[in-house]
Amino acid sequence: MGTGKTAAAQCLASRLGRPMVDTDAAVEARAGRTIARIFTEDGEAAFRELEAAAVAEAGALRGAVIATGGGVPLRRDNMRHLRRHGLIVALIASPEAILARVGGGAARPLLGGDPAMSVSRLLAERDAAYRDADLVLDTSGLSTEQVADRVLAFAEARSGAAPDGAARVVRVDLGERGYDVHVGRGLLARLPVLLREAGVTGRLALLTHPRLDARYGRALADALRAAGREVATVTVPPSESSKSLRAAGRVYDALVDAQLDRGAALLALGGGVVGDLGGFVAATFLRGIRWVSLPTTLLAQVDAAIGGKTAVNLPRGKNLVGTVHQPALVVADIDTLASLPRRELRSGMAEVIKTGVIGAPDPFEFLEANLRRVLARRAGELIHTIGRCAAYKAAVVSRDERESGERMVLNYGHTIGHGIEAAAGYRGLTHGEAVAVGMTLEARLAVRLGVCEPVLLDRQTALLAAAGLPVRLADLGRARPRGPATILAAMTHDKKARAGRLRFVLPASLGRTAVRDDVPPALLEEVLADG
Amino acid sequence: MGTGKTAAAQCLASRLGRPMVDTDAAVEARAGRTIARIFTEDGEAAFRELEAAAVAEAGALRGAVIATGGGVPLRRDNMRHLRRHGLIVALIASPEAILARVGGGAARPLLGGDPAMSVSRLLAERDAAYRDADLVLDTSGLSTEQVADRVLAFAEARSGAAPDGAARVVRVDLGERGYDVHVGRGLLARLPVLLREAGVTGRLALLTHPRLDARYGRALADALRAAGREVATVTVPPSESSKSLRAAGRVYDALVDAQLDRGAALLALGGGVVGDLGGFVAATFLRGIRWVSLPTTLLAQVDAAIGGKTAVNLPRGKNLVGTVHQPALVVADIDTLASLPRRELRSGMAEVIKTGVIGAPDPFEFLEANLRRVLARRAGELIHTIGRCAAYKAAVVSRDERESGERMVLNYGHTIGHGIEAAAGYRGLTHGEAVAVGMTLEARLAVRLGVCEPVLLDRQTALLAAAGLPVRLADLGRARPRGPATILAAMTHDKKARAGRLRFVLPASLGRTAVRDDVPPALLEEVLADG
Repeated sequence: MGTGKTAAAQCLASRLGRPMVDTDAAVEARAGRTIARIFTEDGEAAFRELEAAAVAEAGALRGAVIATGGGVPLRRDNMRHLRRHGLIVALIASPEAILARVGGGAARPLLGGDPAMSVSRLLAERDAAYRDADLVLDTSGLSTEQVADRVLAFAEARSGAAPDGAARVVRVDLGERGYDVHVGRGLLARLPVLLREAGVTGRLALLTHPRLDARYGRALADALRAAGREVATVTVPPSESSKSLRAAGRVYDALVDAQLDRGAALLALGGGVVGDLGGFVAATFLRGIRWVSLPTTLLAQVDAAIGGKTAVNLPRGKNLVGTVHQPALVVADIDTLASLPRRELRSGMAEVIKTGVIGAPDPFEFLEANLRRVLARRAGELIHTIGRCAAYKAAVVSRDERESGERMVLNYGHTIGHGIEAAAGYRGLTHGEAVAVGMTLEARLAVRLGVCEPVLLDRQTALLAAAGLPVRLADLGRARPRGPATILAAMTHDKKARAGRLRFVLPASLGRTAVRDDVPPALLEEVLADG
Repeated sequence: MGTGKTAAAQCLASRLGRPMVDTDAAVEARAGRTIARIFTEDGEAAFRELEAAAVAEAGALRGAVIATGGGVPLRRDNMRHLRRHGLIVALIASPEAILARVGGGAARPLLGGDPAMSVSRLLAERDAAYRDADLVLDTSGLSTEQVADRVLAFAEARSGAAPDGAARVVRVDLGERGYDVHVGRGLLARLPVLLREAGVTGRLALLTHPRLDARYGRALADALRAAGREVATVTVPPSESSKSLRAAGRVYDALVDAQLDRGAALLALGGGVVGDLGGFVAATFLRGIRWVSLPTTLLAQVDAAIGGKTAVNLPRGKNLVGTVHQPALVVADIDTLASLPRRELRSGMAEVIKTGVIGAPDPFEFLEANLRRVLARRAGELIHTIGRCAAYKAAVVSRDERESGERMVLNYGHTIGHGIEAAAGYRGLTHGEAVAVGMTLEARLAVRLGVCEPVLLDRQTALLAAAGLPVRLADLGRARPRGPATILAAMTHDKKARAGRLRFVLPASLGRTAVRDDVPPALLEEVLADG
């Protein structure tokens, strides 16, 4: 409401030479009454039925620009219809901007008595639903033309993807520091074009592991050189030991030798190690150069590559040194997952399932129905799953870049998960395996505290287990930490413990979480002991 | 105009229970006509005379709140009168905010035909003059009460300084990342209060050198502990070798051992080495904690401590690794300059004189008249000089935090200066000495290119020499680089050379510079050869 949907849709339709459908207008035309009158005479429920019918009809069209009412995303069926042939763009705006645009007139029936409060309440209600859009665009301060420009640029970037994969493009909306996340097939081959479109000019350094260099890096460097780019390749060993100040020092030296200046960019091709190290080096070399994340593991594609967290380890602990330095572009080419070891793929599924639990119900339910196809690396299902996870992460990061609030929800499963990893000395288990056990124990905490129903714990446990992930400490075999005390000790050393207090993100229902820092220590110990 | 001066002054005066003088009203009362009529009938020059008389009269008052017209800072005499007993606060606002407030009415004679253009032109004209204020406050979006709050807080912080020093507080206006720079005597003893006022809570780590720790650090830590703060002291050797990844690694370890969490802050007590290293560690520890700069050298107090540049060196070059991470507070206690070696004091004077040349004429002329007293470390003159330099740097940084444009002017003297330092292997000369020679040679380039008059070069040379600084390569003695080729080679390796092109900031006149990247190589070589 008041975000300029109708005007932007008209402008887009006229630029594209396509028909424009306004579902509100369709409802009014069919009912022969204004929406305000439908609300007054028949109530909101009746209007929503009429609206759903109009949306289903519009969703069946191809090549149309469809403007809908702001309440449409609240029904999952509506979103399903719109997604059939379409790209979903959610226009949002600040409450101030909305109020300034719509005033408090009677033609907006939902605004009722106190427009300011009503707008804030509406936004809060609809926020979760908007997260499912392919592009969430804040129109405060933008003209209609500017809104149309951005939607067109986004749609064009998306349609330019390789023809055999329905690539997705997700925007991480951080103003000047915003960037696109591309998910699809054959994207590395298109990198010269994607870099150009993202304005990443200048010299390039490609940071990767030797094996990945042989498999993908050399072809990528050749393609970049063929496009006239200068590229220097730097490799580091594919182990956690590469996330060190020492390794960073060697990469800096290589960048100096390659004569990278402030206009240069670093490409990080690999999983979490290369991404964390590469991002850190880019953040600090010459007080910050641009970088491009090219994640090659499922874990990195759905999570680590998005959000700008960079890190190296200290002898005294993991990820203790780092910055938040957003990439200029993220390109997740799912073809690189073909060579990913099966255990790594499963490990990544832990973060995928986490997103399903804390984010929107849709990805969780999609996985329940399609897990086998995802694990079999079927392109369509992979792109859908990774795209949805990336969109969720992008939305959270857009709203809380520096983890001062909402971004904390991403830590679900990680409070205990990190404790398990640290207690195990990071040996014998993957990050995802630790998170899977962490999610199970934290969900159990939630059930014991009455925060969620047991059925949610059961569904989550079933899905994790079906993905081949451990759900109990005993499942970790020899990596299982010795007793709850070692896990607890490691948890309280974690850098996220502020003033010694443990904070948990607990699932409340699918897509809803509760933050609690009042978990009784005895209960925590009990849950860990039951493990 | 339209920044709310009169309303804010009224509000302040009523809160303080002090008289309020409006110089515009005084002029109108005396002339018996409105200002608009004075402009129309007698012209602007006549009005300015009347205004100057009113300002001189108001400036003689003590304990009054004085509101002036926006053109007052353009006359240096006006500013002198106001500064006599007073603190000068410049209220600014965005052109949009100003236009929204004043409209384009005939009562504002300077707005003429096209108000939008007139406002922008006026702002540009007056911008340099406003830099001289003790506090420059952007009132766009602030209520009168909020403006008064901020001015009061500023005035209180200032008047709370040690009674024997007229401390100055300069604001680095970077929105959420903004902070105050305090310059005065006895400030370290007041640090517990200053930290509290700046909202710097949590555990503290004090990074310094052993000698400075003995001299100031222990007393400071005791004072902080007496105020209930937890402080861990970490020392590093007072040499450039402490600006390394290795030294950073040792500091990180100490911070972990001191159990610093994300809410903690690092205090960097020392010169450039401790500031650069401490800022870098703070920027990267736990993805960024707050830090407070406590500069103890003239160079750091006037320049390095302000602006958030942090750095460590690589074996391949200086300052190649770092970030921009603004401190939460800068406290320049001039008492710490008492123990500064004479050569270091002189070295700092190079940056002071640089500020005089590129910034406003006032500090340069003040130095011409008061150099001996500054070199003799007289408190009043030191505070004035450092305060003005800090204010200038703060203004530049506020407008261009990441050195994408204007901040580059601070590099005057540094393009050649860095080349000299590097060619000398950073041995046998101080940074300020290299900059002094760099400024002389770059000013000579400017004269040869017709960018400035020879008299400016002469005045600058005389002032540098009077400060005991070298002004020719030959003055560097054994540190003198061997021939222009070595300097040139070092210059083109400097990280600021983008795509191999050398960019010079050249003086045009006192307070004005020109950026040139078309300096003929032959001319540069000639100037270097003449040395």
